[in-house]
Amino acid sequence: MSHPIIFDTDPGVDDAQAIAIALAHPEIELLGMTTTYGNVDITTATRNALLLGELAGQAIPVAQGAAAPLVKAKHPAPAFIHGENGLGNIELPPVTGQAISATAAQFIVNQVTARPGEITLVAVGPLGNLATALQLDPGIVTKVKQVVIMGGSVNEGGNVTPVAEANIFNDPHAAARVLTAGWPLTMVGLDATHRCVLRPSDMEAIAASQGRLGEVLAGSYAFYSDFYRGARGIDGCCPHDSCALAWLIEPELFTTARGHLTVITDGDAEGQTLFAPEGRPFIDDRWARTPLVEVCTGADGKAVVEWIVDTLK
Amino acid sequence: MSHPIIFDTDPGVDDAQAIAIALAHPEIELLGMTTTYGNVDITTATRNALLLGELAGQAIPVAQGAAAPLVKAKHPAPAFIHGENGLGNIELPPVTGQAISATAAQFIVNQVTARPGEITLVAVGPLGNLATALQLDPGIVTKVKQVVIMGGSVNEGGNVTPVAEANIFNDPHAAARVLTAGWPLTMVGLDATHRCVLRPSDMEAIAASQGRLGEVLAGSYAFYSDFYRGARGIDGCCPHDSCALAWLIEPELFTTARGHLTVITDGDAEGQTLFAPEGRPFIDDRWARTPLVEVCTGADGKAVVEWIVDTLK
Repeated sequence: MSHPIIFDTDPGVDDAQAIAIALAHPEIELLGMTTTYGNVDITTATRNALLLGELAGQAIPVAQGAAAPLVKAKHPAPAFIHGENGLGNIELPPVTGQAISATAAQFIVNQVTARPGEITLVAVGPLGNLATALQLDPGIVTKVKQVVIMGGSVNEGGNVTPVAEANIFNDPHAAARVLTAGWPLTMVGLDATHRCVLRPSDMEAIAASQGRLGEVLAGSYAFYSDFYRGARGIDGCCPHDSCALAWLIEPELFTTARGHLTVITDGDAEGQTLFAPEGRPFIDDRWARTPLVEVCTGADGKAVVEWIVDTLK
Repeated sequence: MSHPIIFDTDPGVDDAQAIAIALAHPEIELLGMTTTYGNVDITTATRNALLLGELAGQAIPVAQGAAAPLVKAKHPAPAFIHGENGLGNIELPPVTGQAISATAAQFIVNQVTARPGEITLVAVGPLGNLATALQLDPGIVTKVKQVVIMGGSVNEGGNVTPVAEANIFNDPHAAARVLTAGWPLTMVGLDATHRCVLRPSDMEAIAASQGRLGEVLAGSYAFYSDFYRGARGIDGCCPHDSCALAWLIEPELFTTARGHLTVITDGDAEGQTLFAPEGRPFIDDRWARTPLVEVCTGADGKAVVEWIVDTLK
């Protein structure tokens, strides 16, 4: 079975790994990449998306999108995690192509409208592009096949605040719109991605098989891993964004629960994804008013990483 | 070593178990009980505190306190968990004594001032009495020996909302005051108490040794266990409040972490205790502005329950 997807991304080191998977996996048809600020500024995100497609020798449309959050002020891009250039500050070859004229949101609406019921949106950055696609045409809710989000956290705690994951924290208002839109949605958050560690030996195997793209993956991985070694004390990195694709292709590697999400948009808990499991009673019903979605509560991290390496070898 | 304590309580079935421990344990000197609404209304809380002391044959002062939250509107008492009378709707003997004239907050201030550096406050209900004690005399912060709170949750999720534990949710403003007051404080929350299950056979052993008090403990336990069987699918109950005393006497049965607590007072996350571990960097420093406290992140549930049974046998 082939999955036509639009990959919404802010590349970003772990985004680059996921893009390589989307370009390589025989069951994924990458219709286009839509870019957002997040791990990097928007122009860097677009340049990197174009570059990664070109290094793989594929002409994938790239549509540029959000340069800033919908409502809140923008935080600076975390150059200490992904590098100033988003790819670990390694030297990068020039890009020959350019973004298409449609915005990210318009591209999403156009594609989904042209192939109703077929397209999966995989979003691994702040969710502004999906939110503005819903603003342009709320009808896409019934036209997408499904939506897979890398973001959020249920019981794992946050990575940029004690309770918030970075993608949701970066644009909580967009996340509130997207996660409660009522389309078939799966959230792949830190409860799953923190179970997965891509080791140096894994990256060596990947780099050896991916040619010029592999050099970028390995070089940026080295920088990103330094951050993980310091911040989380692990030898390797969590391949967050690849987990969204792993869920799409191999959902049996994850544990999931159905329930209702509420995104906290303000206050000290801003960016938190509050999960009310289906059927569990709470003191009032406000947490069950949002549509039911699927949330990953865990993952077989070893198997997910094996799938990543197998896909890229 | 003997611990002089004031036990702040809203009895409540699991409160009654804890009160029995405070009355029985040779290393605990129970100076008095202060009562609050919470599991039950305030008059019921005071009646039950008096009753439990009398059934144990001990003349323990009871000071009545908060009948409602500091700021938010009061939720009805959860009669479906603790019974209308707070003790599982079993028939109760009459009470002969009455509360002292001092309020709970005044009693706390008076006792702590009279024995500086000696007294531990153990609070297992909504935290209004401790908050108003701080309002009467902020200087008690340096005069208590320590403060042990049953309440809150870090990674366990909530029991009355997806993220909030009942005691904190019932009066989040009081909790915000008490948990960030800067006194030596340990939070024993759901991350620890949900690891502990008091089984029917445990209660049989307790009831057999506790005379008339044992009849009340066993009768109320039966009602409370019915709730747990339905809500959490376990055969037994979580002895939440006893865990605060278990931590006081046997802290090695718990895992703890030091860090900063922030209590969410408004919005969908109201009543959440947001924990920022000491030294862990986040996107800004607002989560590290509150004083360092100790938080239980887990417990050896089997050993805690053995300690409870051993204490009451």
